[in-house]
Amino acid sequence: MESKEGDVAEIRVNPSNYSKRVVLKMILGRSDGGLGLVGERFVIGGWVKSYKDPKKEVPPGVRGSRDSSCVEILQSRIPLFRTVMRILIGSNGSIRENLGVVPPKPEKPSVAYLDVNDGSCVANLQVMVDSSVAPLIQLTPTGTSILVEGILTKASVVGKHAIELKVNEILHVGTVDHAMYPLSKRQLPLNILRGYSQLRPRTTTVASVTRIRSALTHSTHIFFQNNGCLYVHLPVITTTDCKGFSEKFRVTTLLDKANKDPNATDGTNAIGLEVIKDAIKEKSKRVEELKRTDSNKEALFVALQDLKKTNELALQLEEQEKLNRGTSFVARKVDFSTDFFSRQTYLTVSGQLHLECYACALGSVYSFGPTFRAEKSQSTKCLAEMWMVELEMAFTDLEDAINSAEDYLKFMCRWTIENCSDDMKFLSKRIDKTIVNRLQSVASSSFEKISYTDVVEVLKKVKLQCIFIGNIKFINILTTYHGFSSYPIELNNQVTKKAFEAKVEWGVPLTDEHESYLADEIYKKPVIIYNYPKEVKPFYMRLNNDGKTVAALDIVVPKGGALIRGGQREERIDTLLSRIKEFGLPREQYEWYLDLRRHGTVKHSGFSLYFDHMVLFATGLSDIRDVIPFPRSYDNVNN
Amino acid sequence: MESKEGDVAEIRVNPSNYSKRVVLKMILGRSDGGLGLVGERFVIGGWVKSYKDPKKEVPPGVRGSRDSSCVEILQSRIPLFRTVMRILIGSNGSIRENLGVVPPKPEKPSVAYLDVNDGSCVANLQVMVDSSVAPLIQLTPTGTSILVEGILTKASVVGKHAIELKVNEILHVGTVDHAMYPLSKRQLPLNILRGYSQLRPRTTTVASVTRIRSALTHSTHIFFQNNGCLYVHLPVITTTDCKGFSEKFRVTTLLDKANKDPNATDGTNAIGLEVIKDAIKEKSKRVEELKRTDSNKEALFVALQDLKKTNELALQLEEQEKLNRGTSFVARKVDFSTDFFSRQTYLTVSGQLHLECYACALGSVYSFGPTFRAEKSQSTKCLAEMWMVELEMAFTDLEDAINSAEDYLKFMCRWTIENCSDDMKFLSKRIDKTIVNRLQSVASSSFEKISYTDVVEVLKKVKLQCIFIGNIKFINILTTYHGFSSYPIELNNQVTKKAFEAKVEWGVPLTDEHESYLADEIYKKPVIIYNYPKEVKPFYMRLNNDGKTVAALDIVVPKGGALIRGGQREERIDTLLSRIKEFGLPREQYEWYLDLRRHGTVKHSGFSLYFDHMVLFATGLSDIRDVIPFPRSYDNVNN
Repeated sequence: MESKEGDVAEIRVNPSNYSKRVVLKMILGRSDGGLGLVGERFVIGGWVKSYKDPKKEVPPGVRGSRDSSCVEILQSRIPLFRTVMRILIGSNGSIRENLGVVPPKPEKPSVAYLDVNDGSCVANLQVMVDSSVAPLIQLTPTGTSILVEGILTKASVVGKHAIELKVNEILHVGTVDHAMYPLSKRQLPLNILRGYSQLRPRTTTVASVTRIRSALTHSTHIFFQNNGCLYVHLPVITTTDCKGFSEKFRVTTLLDKANKDPNATDGTNAIGLEVIKDAIKEKSKRVEELKRTDSNKEALFVALQDLKKTNELALQLEEQEKLNRGTSFVARKVDFSTDFFSRQTYLTVSGQLHLECYACALGSVYSFGPTFRAEKSQSTKCLAEMWMVELEMAFTDLEDAINSAEDYLKFMCRWTIENCSDDMKFLSKRIDKTIVNRLQSVASSSFEKISYTDVVEVLKKVKLQCIFIGNIKFINILTTYHGFSSYPIELNNQVTKKAFEAKVEWGVPLTDEHESYLADEIYKKPVIIYNYPKEVKPFYMRLNNDGKTVAALDIVVPKGGALIRGGQREERIDTLLSRIKEFGLPREQYEWYLDLRRHGTVKHSGFSLYFDHMVLFATGLSDIRDVIPFPRSYDNVNN
Repeated sequence: MESKEGDVAEIRVNPSNYSKRVVLKMILGRSDGGLGLVGERFVIGGWVKSYKDPKKEVPPGVRGSRDSSCVEILQSRIPLFRTVMRILIGSNGSIRENLGVVPPKPEKPSVAYLDVNDGSCVANLQVMVDSSVAPLIQLTPTGTSILVEGILTKASVVGKHAIELKVNEILHVGTVDHAMYPLSKRQLPLNILRGYSQLRPRTTTVASVTRIRSALTHSTHIFFQNNGCLYVHLPVITTTDCKGFSEKFRVTTLLDKANKDPNATDGTNAIGLEVIKDAIKEKSKRVEELKRTDSNKEALFVALQDLKKTNELALQLEEQEKLNRGTSFVARKVDFSTDFFSRQTYLTVSGQLHLECYACALGSVYSFGPTFRAEKSQSTKCLAEMWMVELEMAFTDLEDAINSAEDYLKFMCRWTIENCSDDMKFLSKRIDKTIVNRLQSVASSSFEKISYTDVVEVLKKVKLQCIFIGNIKFINILTTYHGFSSYPIELNNQVTKKAFEAKVEWGVPLTDEHESYLADEIYKKPVIIYNYPKEVKPFYMRLNNDGKTVAALDIVVPKGGALIRGGQREERIDTLLSRIKEFGLPREQYEWYLDLRRHGTVKHSGFSLYFDHMVLFATGLSDIRDVIPFPRSYDNVNN
């Protein structure tokens, strides 16, 4: 059926990309679910998620099982199993018959219903293929890619699909060997999927996360551009130990020589050992000679003593050499003046200092780039490479930074709710049913604003009591604070959580636990904490008039922890210099940064958003490695 | 004068950021140049670009000179000069009087006109300050930052400004010591400014480049999001030698031990040397003893010989140690299993292979991130860290990649013309008057499409003749090709350009010169070159049916060189495997990438835009280090 010329403009869907195919979102994302397009001819492409064989009357929504039995799969996967079976039952016997497995029906289904997804939306399109069009066995395995042309019709079987595509022509098939495809099994746990970062975007969960991540990225650009901020590309390779708090990665080309010659070992030891071993041989010969010639004892004594010493030396060098080989590189004073940049360079920990240069010239500027921490942590919240959004604004103070940060968070949450409703719905069902409420709450609630000093007072009042019930169980009960909340009482399970791990005391950094407790338990909404003790924040935070606190801010959200950290920057050069001194930082590394205060300094402030944590918060997932396409963390990089 | 309540909505300008000030673009960027806002009270902030003292009747637009004489500046900058002058003229004598310099008029100007810029637009706001409001000497040096409140009035002096802000109150001043401020001198050449990457965004040129770069960035996101592409964050740290063509940076934490102990040298040598030196002392003592006791000669001979050997060994070790200290790291087999990621890691050269994983799951995806090349080049077109936009689309072929690339380039050019007209106008005047035409031409012309094979034929016909005129001059004249163009004949200047540096021959890569010649001289518009010999393009380009060429594409623009490179990717696993073999690449590094072809492979294509080159093209600048905020290139990183 050809499309009617008259209402083309109304019916035709925009392919929205440069492929000949139509993306499924254009069909399935319509308010009518695609029903208005029935009768149209489409080319669609995508990957088979599951298939239904109508003869088997599988209930709608349940993936049809393949005919292969468990034994068959084991056979195809494990040659040893095949061999063992052959020996057990004789090479001519059919395994299936011998094991009493019911053989598959010989007749092929004449039609297959494929659930196809192309990544543009959560929903799958039902694609009906008749066996006269193509051999169905090729099309049905999960993961098979197809590009097909067909007519959109109302669904021929009643089920979750209102429409289906009746295929006229198969334009492309990318086959899958069911037994070899890592994602053949449905709903693999996320930690297994992490091992297949090249394939996991084909799963509904990771695809949804990707779409939400993309939406959050775009909303970031829209928000800042709408607010007159200029985007600035900040360097990844830096010379400054920016924050002074984190472990850094080095960037170098110095190790290349070593790599190019795989047999190279340390030249020095080799030479030293060789010389000494030669010496030992000679000395041994000399000793033998002296012994043989029955020469004077004094000479022999000298020679023997010398041989002993030399042997000891050789032993020492050999041990050292062994140590080097075993445990790798030995610390040595490296001359970085011969490195690519003629000096030491690192991967950036934060672009803030660089961004300030542009704020102190152009007003409001932002950046969105990767930052790096070489922290040997296996935490589910820690990445070695993570993306950060940073804002800096000239002629602003702490209050302005707080307002912009709050607006930005709200904007992102609203944007995600509005633009990713299907993905949010899916993740609510699959991962965490609270995520939509959570985003809505951030978008609409007024954030709690409380100073660090008050936070300490609040947290000090939180007491976790230990109660002994019966013989076995200790239960911690929180004495309610201002009637806000009480700690969940679990009578049947031993609550292992005790009072805060770290003591709450003025002058000590707040821990994740403290921060979460404030947002999750006490205020139950985002909390802005400001004016921290100067010792717990970086040197560039502006010193308040009390001389004890700095104009820093953190925003903590319920179930998300601290998403934003920022503050007003110290614009007074004298104060900044004393702060650098107090922290014991190498001033010469910051001369370029100090220039901003020397020449036409202005008050300015800004913040950083931990973007990956924001995605974690928006998607409800619990491991940060599941929300970034190719996670890099300690001891963990795949490709 | 207070604003009239009635027409607030019409008159009030939106601060558009979180500062109390109004950005100047909101006043000066209006179609009426701000005249409609006369009478309004504003807080504005910015940096003084120049000032006018009306008493001196400086012509409008010319910066008033400071009172300080050249000698004064030299004095303040160079202590030695001060000392020399003091000796020459006696410490009590006034330099000025002794040199006959006219002393400045003692009376201060009662009013100063400051040209103030806040980075939001090219134009400056004229700010009038009366000396009753603030000491003017503090405000006038170039680079001084001010935050002031005042009333917008019509300009009191006729000149380039239609309006001015009459200051009521100074809210902030960030002073500048004229003699110390690197940007005090006007219109410093760009290569000097490169040394001050922290301050150069305060210059009009670098500010304009930054705004254009930001606009190009935003247009990129708008274009791809409008076309249904998802943004994907690609990793910076990778394990794969992605392209196989470029030098890479290593990412490591192995050198940290060396750095932490600045006095550390190679442990082995130190131990070795110590032992040996002890041995030498002992042996020397023994020899002396033997000599003193007039013992038998044989024992003395043995001891002496031994001492000599040991001395030789010490000398060898010492020399080796010296070599290590002097010339840095000595190649040693480094055990990367003890590194942070337990393997070798690099900075990414291109995100394409990773991006393909997401295309082969989600359809159309793009990325915008930093990429790295450790090429020891001092070229004005080469950066060690550069930003790249990458697109990959499933179910597409070469044609689709070409179409999307062409549309993207056109979109960016139109966007820049529409959104950065003032910056374009400024750069046209200051840098290159052809840039607007150039962008317009890309936005409107249909690109020339020509295969590599045809390009070779075209370029082969280009002949540069040498003609001898008179006694001295050789002139190269191009024999016209198809009437397209002739090489400019310069009779009065010796044309140094000869025939193409690299020979044009099928199977050889096109050089920058070839590419530019095609776009600049022959077609005078963007040229799309496609179907390259398989040897000159990476392994993943799709092999055409001829078995000799691959479906690669490059887009070359006049005066901009190759901005885009891309093509269709090889989706057939067997072909891909042979290509990897042909290139001699380590297959095991690509197993994850090969998975995309093993399981549900699809035709797909994409391209990369060299973003920094695009900015270079749009701004007309000639050195790529001037269009990226903090350039990193060989032997060159400042902060």
